[in-house]
Amino acid sequence: MAIQYFTATSVDGFIADPEHSLSWLLSRNVDAEAPMSYQGFIQSVGALVMGASTYRWLLEHEGAEAPWPYDVPCWVFSHHGLQARPGDIRFVQGSVATVHREMAAVAGERNIWVVGGGDLAGQFADAGLLDEVWVQYAPVALGAGAPLLPRRLELSLIEVARNADFACVRYGVVKES
Amino acid sequence: MAIQYFTATSVDGFIADPEHSLSWLLSRNVDAEAPMSYQGFIQSVGALVMGASTYRWLLEHEGAEAPWPYDVPCWVFSHHGLQARPGDIRFVQGSVATVHREMAAVAGERNIWVVGGGDLAGQFADAGLLDEVWVQYAPVALGAGAPLLPRRLELSLIEVARNADFACVRYGVVKES
Repeated sequence: MAIQYFTATSVDGFIADPEHSLSWLLSRNVDAEAPMSYQGFIQSVGALVMGASTYRWLLEHEGAEAPWPYDVPCWVFSHHGLQARPGDIRFVQGSVATVHREMAAVAGERNIWVVGGGDLAGQFADAGLLDEVWVQYAPVALGAGAPLLPRRLELSLIEVARNADFACVRYGVVKES
Repeated sequence: MAIQYFTATSVDGFIADPEHSLSWLLSRNVDAEAPMSYQGFIQSVGALVMGASTYRWLLEHEGAEAPWPYDVPCWVFSHHGLQARPGDIRFVQGSVATVHREMAAVAGERNIWVVGGGDLAGQFADAGLLDEVWVQYAPVALGAGAPLLPRRLELSLIEVARNADFACVRYGVVKES
């Protein structure tokens, strides 16, 4: 079981533009059958976790009436009330270590997906709980926006692939021994 | 003849860390014979251009006594006096368009390499003069530092390769028609 931060980003490391838009991302081509696709990745995921901004973005982008896109339980870190929606969604506060124990019990042999944002992934890394970073680089520079991973974090390259418009890179997180 | 911004960067889009260090980069393995290597790239370069910070970094990192590492003429944008060193180094001011004309005359059929920094590459893009971006991602997140390309710039993916520790990606710049 691995804890994986899987995300799309601009060439220059932003996961959302300054207007919190993903229009620069959603216009790209991606191949579900090609290497390192989301569809391949999600099959091994048994639990997911996201920050409040990511959750709000999903709500606003897809609409509160849209079906929740995930089949596995989702933990949402939030310090303030977020609009609920149907689905196995668990609003939590506190440390990532505590929440991780809950998630791991549910995920079992499957992986945990840190959906975002970057700081939440950083908190998992700070706690020594992040195992992998999967980055899908979209062909655009944004120049500003929400950062991919606002930490200094040593990685090791596992895999590089092209998937349609995306350069896909998979890293292991080098843990301090 | 193409104008190419070729640079190494962190996974999150920084070309130098907040202390202007490249220690996070120079410790990595790279294979001169593997795809998208610097050694392959430089063979087609007929002129290069860099900003004052990049020049100063080279001076400080390699030492003023070290031989200048480039065989082809180098233009350095600078608004203040920089220490000269042996080599075909031309200190210039003014617009990138003007300097580009000088460089193109010298480079002839060969390419122009925009060495850095990110804003100089952005100025070439602003002027419609940047053709390609080659990014070598080192396996580390820095979280802060000098930005890869502080612009909103549409790209198209040309090539993806692994070279030892690096994920190497080559982009075309999509020009407004």
